Amino acid sequence: MAKGRIFSGMQPSGKFHMGNYQVLNNWIKLQNEYDCVYSIVDWHALTSSYEDTSKIPERIECMALDWLSAGLDPEKNIIFVQSHVKEHAELHLLLSMMTPLSWLERVPTYKDKLQQLGEMGKEINTYGFLGYPELQTADIILYKANAVPVAEDQLPHLELAREIVRRFANLYKPIFPEPQPLLSPLLPGIDGRKMSKSYGNEIPYAAEPDELKARVRLMITDPQRVKKTDPGNPDICTVYTFHKIFSPQQTEIASHCRNANIGCVECKNRLAEKMIATLADVHSRRKDMATKPAKIKEILAYGAERARKIAAATMEEVRAAMNLD
Amino acid sequence: MAKGRIFSGMQPSGKFHMGNYQVLNNWIKLQNEYDCVYSIVDWHALTSSYEDTSKIPERIECMALDWLSAGLDPEKNIIFVQSHVKEHAELHLLLSMMTPLSWLERVPTYKDKLQQLGEMGKEINTYGFLGYPELQTADIILYKANAVPVAEDQLPHLELAREIVRRFANLYKPIFPEPQPLLSPLLPGIDGRKMSKSYGNEIPYAAEPDELKARVRLMITDPQRVKKTDPGNPDICTVYTFHKIFSPQQTEIASHCRNANIGCVECKNRLAEKMIATLADVHSRRKDMATKPAKIKEILAYGAERARKIAAATMEEVRAAMNLD
Repeated sequence: MAKGRIFSGMQPSGKFHMGNYQVLNNWIKLQNEYDCVYSIVDWHALTSSYEDTSKIPERIECMALDWLSAGLDPEKNIIFVQSHVKEHAELHLLLSMMTPLSWLERVPTYKDKLQQLGEMGKEINTYGFLGYPELQTADIILYKANAVPVAEDQLPHLELAREIVRRFANLYKPIFPEPQPLLSPLLPGIDGRKMSKSYGNEIPYAAEPDELKARVRLMITDPQRVKKTDPGNPDICTVYTFHKIFSPQQTEIASHCRNANIGCVECKNRLAEKMIATLADVHSRRKDMATKPAKIKEILAYGAERARKIAAATMEEVRAAMNLD
Repeated sequence: MAKGRIFSGMQPSGKFHMGNYQVLNNWIKLQNEYDCVYSIVDWHALTSSYEDTSKIPERIECMALDWLSAGLDPEKNIIFVQSHVKEHAELHLLLSMMTPLSWLERVPTYKDKLQQLGEMGKEINTYGFLGYPELQTADIILYKANAVPVAEDQLPHLELAREIVRRFANLYKPIFPEPQPLLSPLLPGIDGRKMSKSYGNEIPYAAEPDELKARVRLMITDPQRVKKTDPGNPDICTVYTFHKIFSPQQTEIASHCRNANIGCVECKNRLAEKMIATLADVHSRRKDMATKPAKIKEILAYGAERARKIAAATMEEVRAAMNLD
């Protein structure tokens, strides 16, 4: 396609929430402009859940259902499970031989996440966890992706991928493009921080209307707007951030807020209605698809087959460049 | 076979010397007692030679020639090139997820070799170099090896492999035996230290008679034995260590030395003759085989096919145990 190839992935963590849905929404927009490869990265999920892998199969199926019901097209995109394409492991190993240890140690998310999960009692200081961005690099460049849709906190990982691509080109041959970031906006949690189950600020993707209304009602608004008659500032209001996604045509919401034409309760009700309507279709498609697990398996097998074709061709080039063929 | 399975490997470093030949000799003895899997570990070679991989193909062929001409039987043993069996990379990745970083950091050879190669101007502080014993573990347990012929300096690596096997059993399922060491004696270099090209104390495997004689002549003997008429102590003499390997029937050598019946020059001449005779056959077979590179490729392809069968079966068990199937 005109704009080149995109790779992105999500861990099947079993915690799909509206923040993830927003990422997915962005992917769905991209599927018409780029040649997209989207992966359920189960090997990555092992970095934090190697101690209990019992839920991995159901989480993979769950994620496939989430993706497909939201509208990610398995014909337009290559949708597959990472561990079904062994070339990711081979490229990861080869890249590991030429990646200075210090490059991985200095990735800012490394020490942050180590500490964060350590506080939750999870011991994840493993060799594989340190190599997380190395495996991400392999994922991306295996498909020679030109761009990767990422949130801001993932930029250092992509910078590392570009460094590794340059090093590979210098040592062997320039066979990989340097993947560029496609920055995509994130939905905040109801308290305005990054949405994350560990903060307890998430809106579950599967929320029924009542739960959804209740979560929206708890959203932080402009703290200066105490009474309904006070003019508000939508730019610092979490509800408005959501309106921009779920009611993009309602440009009057912002001026209603600024002019105190509607109160926060009314504004939240309008948002909840929009979200309920948007999700109703998705949820009903999801319910329908969930009755056909064989079909889901088939879609993933088809995606893996297509992914493997590209991966195998890349690995032939890699082996030739490294004199390993 | 009665005694179980053995795995071992050698890096195709292009520096085959009599120390390696001695290891190989030990493998050849084992081929009649065990079910043996021997690998030319080219991925391992990348840890120290990723910057110039141009010689890897010729070094692999060289090593295969060395092995086969010395008498390693490609029917009795599975002889293959590591990178031809991708399961090594997959298992390496999976093990990486559950191996604490500290286990790898504390392997004694890690910091030693880092320093040693650093002094030689080689920058090998890579992620892959840290993971070297992790990949070794994958190599060994992929074939469910019961034992590994090793020299003493490799014992910590094998201890790590056993630790990882136990951890895998605790977390998932006990599918791997704990590999036990089969300690094999090493040949020292001509100065009595470990034989290594970097010490300049090696006897090249390919040495012609004159070069071999010259190297033997330089061997360190009992320093207390100054004159021919002084009685010597064979137990501290490098020449005698070699005699035990190359003239095992000459038990009188030790008493000749103790009784000052023969001098060091004569003793060295006898050794050189034995070594020349032993190597003559091997060298002539090697020369002959070197004219048939297609045959060598065929043997390695056959070995890889047999290795892959075992590896694929193990990986099915591993994936099932980890819920990744």
